[in-house]
Amino acid sequence: MRVLGIDCGSVKTGYGVIDSDGRDHSMVTAGVIRTRSTLPLATRLAEIARQLREIISQYAPEAAAVEEVFYAQNVKSALNLAHVRGIALLAVSEAGLEIGEYSPLEVKTSVVGYGRAEKCQVKMMVCSLLRLKAPIESEDACDALAVAVCHATHARLV
Amino acid sequence: MRVLGIDCGSVKTGYGVIDSDGRDHSMVTAGVIRTRSTLPLATRLAEIARQLREIISQYAPEAAAVEEVFYAQNVKSALNLAHVRGIALLAVSEAGLEIGEYSPLEVKTSVVGYGRAEKCQVKMMVCSLLRLKAPIESEDACDALAVAVCHATHARLV
Repeated sequence: MRVLGIDCGSVKTGYGVIDSDGRDHSMVTAGVIRTRSTLPLATRLAEIARQLREIISQYAPEAAAVEEVFYAQNVKSALNLAHVRGIALLAVSEAGLEIGEYSPLEVKTSVVGYGRAEKCQVKMMVCSLLRLKAPIESEDACDALAVAVCHATHARLV
Repeated sequence: MRVLGIDCGSVKTGYGVIDSDGRDHSMVTAGVIRTRSTLPLATRLAEIARQLREIISQYAPEAAAVEEVFYAQNVKSALNLAHVRGIALLAVSEAGLEIGEYSPLEVKTSVVGYGRAEKCQVKMMVCSLLRLKAPIESEDACDALAVAVCHATHARLV
């Protein structure tokens, strides 16, 4: 199955598309949608939605996966993130994709085997699972690939 | 000017359209978009977006107004609301409407003249300002009309 992972953020939204049979995964594409933080939120949302729809249309994933909102540290940024998450869910729902939502703990457990893994461990494991020759530079793209891998692994077990 | 006010909520989203010259206001329509809380959030977001786009297309407002997210009481419901607010901002932004965002304090001050006004005072003043013969039943529709009146009043002063 082809899975689109999305790592929502109001300034940088990571995305990653993988092909997977639930055990073996390969990367199709990954990147970051950037919007200028000086622009009004509504304008940024429209730009993120436009690019997400374009990615869905170009790579035709069958499923999409997003992380649940994590708000332990900063409520204000969690609220901004929730706006973006709303439009991401809208874009994938309107495209008719199957949707998986996972907690950060589930993603880390699925990718690293340990729910409290550090960011660098997630990055290392994502690169290893996808057999990437060069590491993914962007943390946001890497997190998006991680949630895509998590979904593919879960989907196999269902 | 014709203004669409939106009162976001993940289960009930109020909307209200008014015509206004900044002093005199009249109601065009008002109502509530309801979605079943048992449905997945993504499905509810798609339904709310669909209906908002339909309202925009039917009533052709020039501007839209939404309240800022208020999270003093319950972070979880504020986060759900922020998802809906994201898609509301997206819908109005994609329709090319001018957008106003106001705090609950600004809305109450604008409508009642007192920032800590009770809900029933807001309702009474909305009905009075719009010269409604019968009171608006729905609190969500009434709050949407209040933020529309707030925007129309602010727009006159700019």
